[in-house]
Parts: sequence; C-alpha cells; structure tokens
Amino acid sequence: MSQLTHFDARGNARMVDITDKKETHRVAEVRGEVVMSPATLELIQQGGMAKGDVLGVARVAGIMAAKSTPNLIPMAHPIMITGVNIDFKFAPPNMLEIRGIVKTGGKTGVEMEALTAVSVAALTIYDMCKAVDKSMVIQNIRLVNKSGGKSGDFLREGEEPWEK
Amino acid sequence: MSQLTHFDARGNARMVDITDKKETHRVAEVRGEVVMSPATLELIQQGGMAKGDVLGVARVAGIMAAKSTPNLIPMAHPIMITGVNIDFKFAPPNMLEIRGIVKTGGKTGVEMEALTAVSVAALTIYDMCKAVDKSMVIQNIRLVNKSGGKSGDFLREGEEPWEK
Amino acid sequence: MSQLTHFDARGNARMVDITDKKETHRVAEVRGEVVMSPATLELIQQGGMAKGDVLGVARVAGIMAAKSTPNLIPMAHPIMITGVNIDFKFAPPNMLEIRGIVKTGGKTGVEMEALTAVSVAALTIYDMCKAVDKSMVIQNIRLVNKSGGKSGDFLREGEEPWEK
Amino acid sequence: MSQLTHFDARGNARMVDITDKKETHRVAEVRGEVVMSPATLELIQQGGMAKGDVLGVARVAGIMAAKSTPNLIPMAHPIMITGVNIDFKFAPPNMLEIRGIVKTGGKTGVEMEALTAVSVAALTIYDMCKAVDKSMVIQNIRLVNKSGGKSGDFLREGEEPWEK
Amino acid sequence: MSQLTHFDARGNARMVDITDKKETHRVAEVRGEVVMSPATLELIQQGGMAKGDVLGVARVAGIMAAKSTPNLIPMAHPIMITGVNIDFKFAPPNMLEIRGIVKTGGKTGVEMEALTAVSVAALTIYDMCKAVDKSMVIQNIRLVNKSGGKSGDFLREGEEPWEK
Amino acid sequence: MSQLTHFDARGNARMVDITDKKETHRVAEVRGEVVMSPATLELIQQGGMAKGDVLGVARVAGIMAAKSTPNLIPMAHPIMITGVNIDFKFAPPNMLEIRGIVKTGGKTGVEMEALTAVSVAALTIYDMCKAVDKSMVIQNIRLVNKSGGKSGDFLREGEEPWEK
Repeated sequence: MSQLTHFDARGNARMVDITDKKETHRVAEVRGEVVMSPATLELIQQGGMAKGDVLGVARVAGIMAAKSTPNLIPMAHPIMITGVNIDFKFAPPNMLEIRGIVKTGGKTGVEMEALTAVSVAALTIYDMCKAVDKSMVIQNIRLVNKSGGKSGDFLREGEEPWEK
Repeated sequence: MSQLTHFDARGNARMVDITDKKETHRVAEVRGEVVMSPATLELIQQGGMAKGDVLGVARVAGIMAAKSTPNLIPMAHPIMITGVNIDFKFAPPNMLEIRGIVKTGGKTGVEMEALTAVSVAALTIYDMCKAVDKSMVIQNIRLVNKSGGKSGDFLREGEEPWEK
Repeated sequence: MSQLTHFDARGNARMVDITDKKETHRVAEVRGEVVMSPATLELIQQGGMAKGDVLGVARVAGIMAAKSTPNLIPMAHPIMITGVNIDFKFAPPNMLEIRGIVKTGGKTGVEMEALTAVSVAALTIYDMCKAVDKSMVIQNIRLVNKSGGKSGDFLREGEEPWEK
Repeated sequence: MSQLTHFDARGNARMVDITDKKETHRVAEVRGEVVMSPATLELIQQGGMAKGDVLGVARVAGIMAAKSTPNLIPMAHPIMITGVNIDFKFAPPNMLEIRGIVKTGGKTGVEMEALTAVSVAALTIYDMCKAVDKSMVIQNIRLVNKSGGKSGDFLREGEEPWEK
Repeated sequence: MSQLTHFDARGNARMVDITDKKETHRVAEVRGEVVMSPATLELIQQGGMAKGDVLGVARVAGIMAAKSTPNLIPMAHPIMITGVNIDFKFAPPNMLEIRGIVKTGGKTGVEMEALTAVSVAALTIYDMCKAVDKSMVIQNIRLVNKSGGKSGDFLREGEEPWEK
Repeated sequence: MSQLTHFDARGNARMVDITDKKETHRVAEVRGEVVMSPATLELIQQGGMAKGDVLGVARVAGIMAAKSTPNLIPMAHPIMITGVNIDFKFAPPNMLEIRGIVKTGGKTGVEMEALTAVSVAALTIYDMCKAVDKSMVIQNIRLVNKSGGKSGDFLREGEEPWEK
C-alpha cells in the first residue's frame, strides 16, 4: 500500500476522509522569492513608495488565491480560512522575498493555502513586470512553519526571522 | 510615467488595452522543479509505474489551472487557450522537473498561463506527497521560450533540450 | 494606525484574523432599488404573472452570488451561509425594490453576502431588460438590519417594514 | 403551500434556512453508468492498465466537481465536504459503472455533492472518448445510500454490493 | 498510440492543440430525462403553472453550467458560446425530458457544453425535489445532433422530433 | 411575444443567440457612487496618500469582477474583454465616485461587465470600511456611455466629464 495518503489501497486518488479530525487552531507560514534584474527591483521599490503599486496588487491576488486553493489543488479539502497575511521584503540587488501566513480553526492544515497564496503573489509580480523583464525566476517556495493538528508542528531549520 | 504597462500615468493598476492587437499563433514554454527527499522521489516514480499516480493528478491540475489564470492573476486578460501539455522528468536523486507548454491563437501571450500551469502542478505534487515530506521546495519556475506577438520571441539562454 | 481593520499597522491589506471569534447566529438584511421607465416596469410585472420571469432569474442569480461573495470581495472571509431569501416589490410607476436576507451560524457577519446578493440581483434585472431600457439606475443599496456577532446589532433608522 | 422546501409560501425559490440544523456525520453514495461501444470500453480498459488513463482523469474531475456543487446547483448550501471517493467498474461488453461516495460533518446532506461528482466523472469519460464514440449514453444516475441527518437514512432497494 | 486524442503518444493526458482549427458555426443538441414518482411530476407541473417554478430554476442552472464547462471538464477547451436554450417536456406519468441546445462560432464543438447544461439542469431538478422524492433517476443523457466542424455532423438515429 | 430578448416566445429564459453578430470595437463606461460619513471619506483619502490603500484593493476587485461577469449574470455571454480601467474621485464631504471603462473586440456589448466592475468596486469599499461605518449607501450605478455594436451608441444626458 502506498504511504501517500491521497491514494487508497488500490492506488486510486481520493480526498482523504477527515470527518473525524478535530477542529483546532492551525497556522502555516510559507516563504518564496522572485529573482529579477536590479532595474526591475528598483521599479517595484519606486512604485511602492509613489505610483504603480505592484506589491499592493500582488498582495490582493495572494489573499484571494488562498481562498481558491480547493478549486486548484484536486485533493485539497475545502476549509474556512480565518486569516491571511502577505508580506514582501526587498533583498537588493535582485531579489524580492514573499511571506504568506494563513490561519484556520478547521479540521485540516493550511499549508496548501499558504503555498498557493505565495505562488500566486509571485506569479502576479511576474505578470505586472513582464513587460520590462521576462527572465524573472520564482524560486525557493517552501513551508517555513506549521503548527496545530495531529501530525505535529513543523519548523524548517536554518530560517531567519522575518524582519523588515 | 511607469515603464510597467499594467499601470496608467497616475500609477493606477489597469488591465492594459489590447483591443487592437492582432490575433496570432503564440506559444509559451515554462519549466520548474520540485526538490524533495530521495525517498519521496522514489515513491512518486513507483506510483507512475504501478499505483498511486501523483503525476497524473498533477498534470490534470496544471491543465485546469492554465484555464483559471485570468481568475487568479488580476490584470491578466481572458484568453482562449488552444492547447496545453504538461510533462514531468525525474532528475534523481532528489528532483522532479516540470514543463508546461501553452498555445493560443489570441491577442496576448500565454506566459502567465504556462507559469500558472507549472506552479499549480508543482503545488499539487506537494499536496499529494506532504504526508511523507513537508520540506519539499518549489524552485526555478521560469519562462524558457516564447514565440508570437509584437514583443518578439524570447529564448532563455543556457537551457537544455527537454528529453525524457 | 489605521482604524480600518482590513489593514495592518503598516497599512498593508490583510484578511483580518477571526480564528477566535465565536460561532453565533447572524442575519443581515439589505435592500436596494432599480429605477426604470414605467414601460419597463410594466413589462417585468406582466412577466411575473405570465411569461418571461425576469424576477425569477434575478432571484436565482442573487442567491448564487451570495455564495460567490468571498471570490469577489478580496478581504471577505469564506463563510458557510445557511439561508438566503431574495424578494422583490413593485413601487410603481418606475421603481422595483429588492430585499435580500442572508443567515449563517459562523464566525463573521453576512452583510457582504447580502449586499452582493442584492447587487447581483439588480445587475441581472438590468441585463434582462437592457434591450428595452439602457437608462435604468441601480440605487440605494444599503444595510437595513444586522444581528449577531460581537460588534452588536445594527438597525437603519427610518426604514419601513417590508410588506408586499 | 408547496411541499417543495426550496420555495417559500409564495412560491419563490430560496436557499432553505438550515442555521439550526445539527452538525452530524453524513454520507451519500451515488452510482451511475456510461454505456458505450465495446471497442470504446476496451480502449478505456487498456488505458487503465498501460497508457492513457481515462479513468484517472475522470476521477480527478469528479472529486473537484464535488467541491464545485454549490456553485452549480442554485439552492445548494455551501458545505465543507470531508472526504470523496470515486470508483469505476467495468461491466463488459459495453458498460462502465461509476460510484461516488461523499462525506461531511456538516449541517446538510451531501447527496447533491455525490450526484454532481458522478455526473461530472461521466461527462469527463464522454469528453475523453468522444473522438472515437459520440453515441455514448450517461444513464441511471441515482442515490444508492444516504445516512445521517434528521430526514433519516435512505437505502435504495435492489442494489447489489459494489465489488470489483 | 492511443486513438483517444486527449492523450499524447506516451499516454499522457493533454488539452489537444486546436490552434489551427477553423472558426465555424457549431451547434449541439443534447437530451436527457429525469424519472420520478408521478406525485413529484405533478408537483413540478403545478409549480410551472402557479407557484414554485422548479423548471425556471433548473433552466438558469443549466445555462450557467454551459458556461462553466471548461472549469469542470479537465481537457475541455475554453470556448465562447454564443447561445443556449434549455427546454423541458413532461412525459407523464413519471418522466420529465430535458433538451439543451448550445451554439458557438468557435474552433471546437459544443457537445460537452450541451451535455453539461442538461446534466446540471437534471441535477437541479433533483435538488429542488429531493425533499419529497429521493429515488429520482437521471438517465439517457445523450448527444442527439451535432453540426459544424471538421469531424462532420452527427445525428442520432431513432430520435423523435422535440415537440411540446 | 415578449420584447425582452432574453426570453423566447414561450417566455422561457435563454442565452440569446449572437452567433451571427459581428466582432467590433465596443466600449462601455459606467459610473456609481458610495455615500458615507465625512469621517470615513477622510480615512480613505488619507489611506490613498499614505497607508491602507482602500481604493487600490477596490480597483483590483473591480477589474477581476469584470472578468467574472458571465459567471454572475445568468444570461450574459462569455466575452473576451480587452481592457478595463477603474477610477475613483472624491466628492467631499461625503461621496466617493467610481468610474469603470471596459473594452472588447467581441460580438456583444460590455455594459454588464462595466456595471459589474463598478458594483464590485463599490462593495469592496463597503467591506474595507464597514468596521467604522455600516450606514454607507451604494447609489446611482448607471451606464454613462456605450459605443459599438448594432444597437447603436448610448450617451446618458446630463453627465459631466470625468475630471480629477
């Protein structure tokens, strides 16, 4: 039998039965990065301070995407998320960092919601800037921290605190 | 004025006017990677051959996500995509490569559709395997090739041909 | 710091954390109006009695829209609504009144769901009748009544009872 | 007054108020069939064993459709489904059977979710095979079993156990 | 190689490339049936004439579902449908017939859109009436007629004209 | 027969057949207002200049809603919109004006897309500010200008030019 819980004993994909799981506080923190040319990074920085707020649009996209997760990820359970924060941090000369935190009081974790939020925020940054830089790369999208639920907490080693 | 076309002269986000752009054949190829433990990679490989087809589910998710792009990316134009392929390639001991190719005959490029397809395929792989490996990382999501449209072709340097 | 709870201390939009809010009975009642030519109002009235049921279609649209609220309103929480009613009342010679009532047993209010339901019902009436009257105006969409939840009840002054 | 609970005393459609219903374990099992030419059935069978996995795609589509039910069925309540299984069984020479089981711990039954899952799985099979067989027929979509909730259990008579 | 065009030579599902297909007028007609108790059929008939319009709600659901087809059927192409009609016919004592006609001027057929429209109209009828009759069966969903496109016309033999 | 084109001769709702309509440039301009307390208007004004950008979020919501129009308005045709602009104008002491312009090169007008964009932008403003002001009113949502298409141009009389 597969160790992958999203398959049954025959190897058929399924939405795992979580009917009996407990409702608890759950939080997931995900981080990712968009690497770009220094000139593009500067354009975004200027926008955040003055006109053309790339990060404001990407934040909205990420928050809305967290809510769309069960429509995108086939075996993901629908879940009532109760809070989402998306933050950005400039890491000059050529990198923008993204952090997404998602919370719920439900029966299953919100890693996928946080991963989806950060991915779509990154994709939106690509979209907003692709007229000037098509070689941007989305990288290092990873779960940094997860708490709540039966499978226990997860804390990725070697991560630095997020400070602005 | 901003060089970022998704903003107007005042810095307000907008969906760029493409009414007068020509309908032409357009193709975009995007690649990305999921890095995981060797044990997880083996589980996926076994599944593809026998039971528990992670990649089959991720392929469907990626194709459907390509169609959802304008609902996820705020300034993306709706577009009639006319073809999508998602491929996977094992790069042992710890990496899975993903390639997405999207085509259209429409007025705007399909980079965002291909980037979204590959991102959601990667997220689905994470979801299907997270019970055994929460430290997987999604990385190196990048436009490899783009043709068609006024802004000209794009070919990322240094990419190797995709062979299975 | 902003008094607008949908922003954090830095002014970044967020989905407010409601993890610790209590699940209680909550109801919201919203009303709105569509002003049109007397001839258009008559057409709709005839339809309701005989053929071409504009209001039946608008009612379905409004109920479905209540369920789409978190996909439309960026910072709105997903919520399990537990009941929706949409009613219409003719106010001749030139006005149609709409009332939407939405209920939930969840952690956050349903004002946005009721406002969205009434707005989309009004938009649908416009759509169904625009072939004969493009100058219709949607107006006076307002929260009339709200109960349940920590922020207390709200009752708009000066509203008349809804009677048919 | 109508016996159809989705209408009020005036005959207007509504989403029935379930605010006060209890959250209990609920399960629904639905079955359906796709009738096709024996050659098409053989193509699907070969695919399941080797390449071109029609049923794998249809299973993903069915599971995702279960989650879309409230967006498709106007008066259906949003509900947090907690598990979905879709199975297929070959009934040669010309029939494929589909079974969908949906679970929840919520306030209303999941018959509609299971019916929708099986219907969309059947539609997907049609789509994947229509290049070789346009005369396939979807038939006998029916609730087989339902438990949980105030309205009591339902067990369709004359159904055989599902064995592969 | 598979004869199923939705798979490539390796058996991987794909959205078939239709970039070079011509835009032509295309029409698809689908029919299906809901079998129910005579008492339920009478309830629906009375509603159509007086109060509680089951068929009006089902018609709206079917038309909206036609537009959702590419979000439900994984390999279906997005397509601009240009017209939808849903009709119902009572076949007493225990059957309701549904007909859906979908049109487009696009690059691919609209069979799936018409099949989806009729299926969702049938599911909605089940939903509206399930409080009085859980043993209803959806059956005989079939393509009756298709015209336009390279693959030629299709006319199912033995179908009677649709007359009310 | 009804003059309302969204119904057939029997009074059944339908998506009107536009297969033979010509693809032309079409533009629609819609305006609307949100009336609020002077204190709330000031809060929004400060945000636009410093922190907490209510209008930035509402603009994104309005643009995305334009793309969702056919999923919200039952009889609306899917259409490829090719440009969207949402603008805001302060009309102190207590009013915020919204203008939405939507363009397409398709077969049907984009009034509904522009009306939906402005409505959802207004609803989002309500959502972002409802913690401080629940008595805001959405009003005067109206088509101001429409060009392109067989039914001819429409220009609402008495409208002033939009100047900031």
